[in-house]
Amino acid sequence: MNTQNKLDALRRKMDEAGVSAVIIPNADSHQSEYLAEHWQTLKWLTGFSGSAGTAVVTKTQAGMWTDFRYWIQADAQLDSFKLFRQGDTDVPPFDKWLTHTLSSNDRIALDGKMVSAAQANSLKNKFSQKGIVLDTTLDLISDLWQDRPSMPRTPAFELDVVYAGETRKEKFSRIRKKMADYNADCHVLAALDDIAWTFNLRGEDIHSNPVNLTFALITMDKISLFIDPAKVSPALETTLKTDGVTLFDYDVFYETVQDLNKNARVLLDPERISDFIYQAIEMRSDIIEHSNPSVMFKCVKNEVEISHIRETAVKDGRAVVNFLHWLDTSDAPKTEISTAEQLLNFRKEQDAFIHPSFDSIMAFKEHSAICHYSADPDTDLPLSSDAMFLTDSGGNYLTGTTDITRTVHLGAPTSQEIRDYTLVLKAHIAVATARFPTTARGYQIDAMARRHLWQQGLDFGHGTGHGVGFFLCVHEGPARLSTLPVDIALAPGMLLTNEPGLYREGLYGIRLENMILVIDDEETQFGKFLKFENMTLCHFECDLVDKTMLNLAEINWVNGYHQMVYDQLSPGLDAPVRQWLGHKTKHF
Amino acid sequence: MNTQNKLDALRRKMDEAGVSAVIIPNADSHQSEYLAEHWQTLKWLTGFSGSAGTAVVTKTQAGMWTDFRYWIQADAQLDSFKLFRQGDTDVPPFDKWLTHTLSSNDRIALDGKMVSAAQANSLKNKFSQKGIVLDTTLDLISDLWQDRPSMPRTPAFELDVVYAGETRKEKFSRIRKKMADYNADCHVLAALDDIAWTFNLRGEDIHSNPVNLTFALITMDKISLFIDPAKVSPALETTLKTDGVTLFDYDVFYETVQDLNKNARVLLDPERISDFIYQAIEMRSDIIEHSNPSVMFKCVKNEVEISHIRETAVKDGRAVVNFLHWLDTSDAPKTEISTAEQLLNFRKEQDAFIHPSFDSIMAFKEHSAICHYSADPDTDLPLSSDAMFLTDSGGNYLTGTTDITRTVHLGAPTSQEIRDYTLVLKAHIAVATARFPTTARGYQIDAMARRHLWQQGLDFGHGTGHGVGFFLCVHEGPARLSTLPVDIALAPGMLLTNEPGLYREGLYGIRLENMILVIDDEETQFGKFLKFENMTLCHFECDLVDKTMLNLAEINWVNGYHQMVYDQLSPGLDAPVRQWLGHKTKHF
Repeated sequence: MNTQNKLDALRRKMDEAGVSAVIIPNADSHQSEYLAEHWQTLKWLTGFSGSAGTAVVTKTQAGMWTDFRYWIQADAQLDSFKLFRQGDTDVPPFDKWLTHTLSSNDRIALDGKMVSAAQANSLKNKFSQKGIVLDTTLDLISDLWQDRPSMPRTPAFELDVVYAGETRKEKFSRIRKKMADYNADCHVLAALDDIAWTFNLRGEDIHSNPVNLTFALITMDKISLFIDPAKVSPALETTLKTDGVTLFDYDVFYETVQDLNKNARVLLDPERISDFIYQAIEMRSDIIEHSNPSVMFKCVKNEVEISHIRETAVKDGRAVVNFLHWLDTSDAPKTEISTAEQLLNFRKEQDAFIHPSFDSIMAFKEHSAICHYSADPDTDLPLSSDAMFLTDSGGNYLTGTTDITRTVHLGAPTSQEIRDYTLVLKAHIAVATARFPTTARGYQIDAMARRHLWQQGLDFGHGTGHGVGFFLCVHEGPARLSTLPVDIALAPGMLLTNEPGLYREGLYGIRLENMILVIDDEETQFGKFLKFENMTLCHFECDLVDKTMLNLAEINWVNGYHQMVYDQLSPGLDAPVRQWLGHKTKHF
Repeated sequence: MNTQNKLDALRRKMDEAGVSAVIIPNADSHQSEYLAEHWQTLKWLTGFSGSAGTAVVTKTQAGMWTDFRYWIQADAQLDSFKLFRQGDTDVPPFDKWLTHTLSSNDRIALDGKMVSAAQANSLKNKFSQKGIVLDTTLDLISDLWQDRPSMPRTPAFELDVVYAGETRKEKFSRIRKKMADYNADCHVLAALDDIAWTFNLRGEDIHSNPVNLTFALITMDKISLFIDPAKVSPALETTLKTDGVTLFDYDVFYETVQDLNKNARVLLDPERISDFIYQAIEMRSDIIEHSNPSVMFKCVKNEVEISHIRETAVKDGRAVVNFLHWLDTSDAPKTEISTAEQLLNFRKEQDAFIHPSFDSIMAFKEHSAICHYSADPDTDLPLSSDAMFLTDSGGNYLTGTTDITRTVHLGAPTSQEIRDYTLVLKAHIAVATARFPTTARGYQIDAMARRHLWQQGLDFGHGTGHGVGFFLCVHEGPARLSTLPVDIALAPGMLLTNEPGLYREGLYGIRLENMILVIDDEETQFGKFLKFENMTLCHFECDLVDKTMLNLAEINWVNGYHQMVYDQLSPGLDAPVRQWLGHKTKHF
């Protein structure tokens, strides 16, 4: 079926169900960011393969909303769906568009397993103001999708406490303490990284995210893990049982939650549980809404994790420096795809490397202006010496997850490229050198970076930074550095990225990304202050910097950072690479 | 009765009503910031006279929560109540404290007229998680407060369209259009400045806030204004009736809302309506929750208002420069209180001045470290030449409301004072020179100012700026420049203050405040950009600036601003003052 056939079939389903519109989010039953193929409904229906988007189909119209990062990609991939450039002036969000397009008493279908309880609730409220009903009990897709990929089935494995730094029993105990604080006697988890962290388990069920398809249910006297038994080895089963975990089949979960104690007081995170689960529990039990305790626990890295992350920075830094050296010096013909393979090979040389933490972005020339560009054989550009090259990649190691972006010029940069690179570097340094009280929020740090661009009438359409998991999801909440009013205080132990950028559509893009760890700074009479420790080791391109645009503190920062990069990486590099890095990091 | 007697009497009332605790907010029935004496319950009960605080009384404890700005003042004024330093590390908010102090099934009393529906709802949710009941139907204070001041009764008067720039009928029409957008057929207003703006009426019912005690009810075919008839002259009554306004007595309002059409769809702003009114309406009608349309309309000043504000900046600037000249040159003995009188006299010389927009803060020496210091005869310090003096004041003119702070040294400043003043000035300039896209929020601008202090381990406990009304409240929502995640985009026409500060308890405080107007800047390929226009004209103290701490752009800004101040103010100043200002604003 082509997209038009699918659309026609979906509209017949809509007629049968008596709904005027259907919303198809890019989502799974666990509110994951990245999706197993089984859940890539949006891609199947619309042809758009980006990681964020929402399709809406009415009887006469079909639209797909996606943000700034994917506008160029979506424009190329969509045929039967109209692209709505989410965030652009005068483009209404899909819910507002629906409210204007539909009439009172119209019904909209949205599969309740594919939407968080919080989002479903928010949508219901908005639609009800116009008298429109949101029905979250209908799944109109599954019947249509004949060749749907099956659910993933990779083995689960234990993340040793040598890496995790805290046993699962200690984690259970911390969670139960929070449950008691909230007066809850039961806690339901559906978010895969929350469960992976809590149980010290990892897997490969989702591409790039080392998690298992699971649900969990924690009470004061029982810990239940719902997972396909084929994924659990006898040895792992024994270990889990020893730690008090009872295993159930994944499929049993939905029956189990529908059958909770009538008087249970269930702790739920409406952002991280589906509307379907929420509704099922709400029928019989009291719900206590609160962020999952594991969300805050997980984002604050412990000392064992931090020491692994520091060591991983050296390994990953060597891989990236080896790659950049190869890029600069090898005569081999290169394309975007082949460079990704080369970088992967350098990472594979590193100890305890498991797999990439996301699909590398290797973007040459105008492709680098596409924030989340993904090269495929149709678009794969050969590299030449006339343009900028942006490389954004990361690794999942047993010793931590990495995320790094560098932008280089393969030939002679223009003065505009140099000016832009310098501005992005200034934004990067503004974050790297920030000092802030314990009450500070990520949006304040983001503003410090962005000011350097705003003052020149420039901007970038993504956040300055996101949280990073420990051998877990490369995008991890809840802390972030972004323009959004996320009310989470930065706290020591939080691992984030620092990645301001600048994108000139059709020309080039620049992004400079390090990972940073929130650490203690001094305490003054105005309170306790925090700062960032750099957790990525790789030089910047001084040839792309206009030194006259930097102030003395910024120049000192670059020189100090470069000295640290050289000192830490050079012992493990081959002589030619070491020499090359010495040149790249020389005092400027 | 002293505070202990009042506390004893209140506890007897609590026993009779069977409640374990009572919350006494600093509030009136209109969710006003400043309160008529009739509603100064917190001051009557606790002795604390600051403008923000919440008292909580249990059977055995009595606490008063107030923020940073008032800690020193509250410490001095409280006797029977324990001060909780709200915002300080390890000080729980009063609701959390109550949750920990009380037990399941305990009841808390809070007069539903004295709390917004939004806040009551939030408190109810928090308490219910612990099984504690919040009863908003009880008023335990009125019976105890024997000598309670009566409700204010000042005349209402029309703000001519020559000043307002838009007729009330045009405003009604804009509001009705929004009501239609929200599918509402009825709109209830209790916020006094919303009503004053909507009806082009002003009064003097609340000290410093030129408003009338009113309620309003707008339907598609009727406009009802609830106001004490004694306040409305026959001429004004005729004008209002001509414009389609039906007048009712203030007291009739509560019966009227309880008697709305059963099927009415009522637009309510839960932040700006009392829980009492909300509950009454919710019993019979459908509520559509949304910010009052007048809130966003009012905060975006129209062209007529803006041209008046520009003209007011000249008048108010002359008054303040005359005052600072007098402060610098007059040999007369001065105290904090006498200087306030002197400044008021200079303002009274200006055309269309009505009254101060708030009680002037004239704070000498260590008093300047108290953000909202208010001199009284017991604390009134004589001025001498050995310390800093902070003057924060404003005027209500028919042509607009002003708010300005300057800090001067009456003798020879120390190097720390100069360093601190320079840092605050750098923060001020960061805002004044900011350029930002139309998506920018106030918290981003705040962060740009605060960075200059944070980098040095310094901070200040208030926002960088607040909205200002047009001949209305000096603090006007919803836009603000603060650390809080207020999700309101800055838009052309918004009038704000720019007032970073720095306070060294026991020594001195510095605050530098101008009003700023959001205006259009250029449009680039990254979108439309905005910037600020300065709406306050008064020099800064170059003697308090360490020029080596400023970069070239900052020095240029000071010189450019000083040139503008001199050019605009000097024509209306007496020769000695003009000469003095010339010296103060000379190129540096």
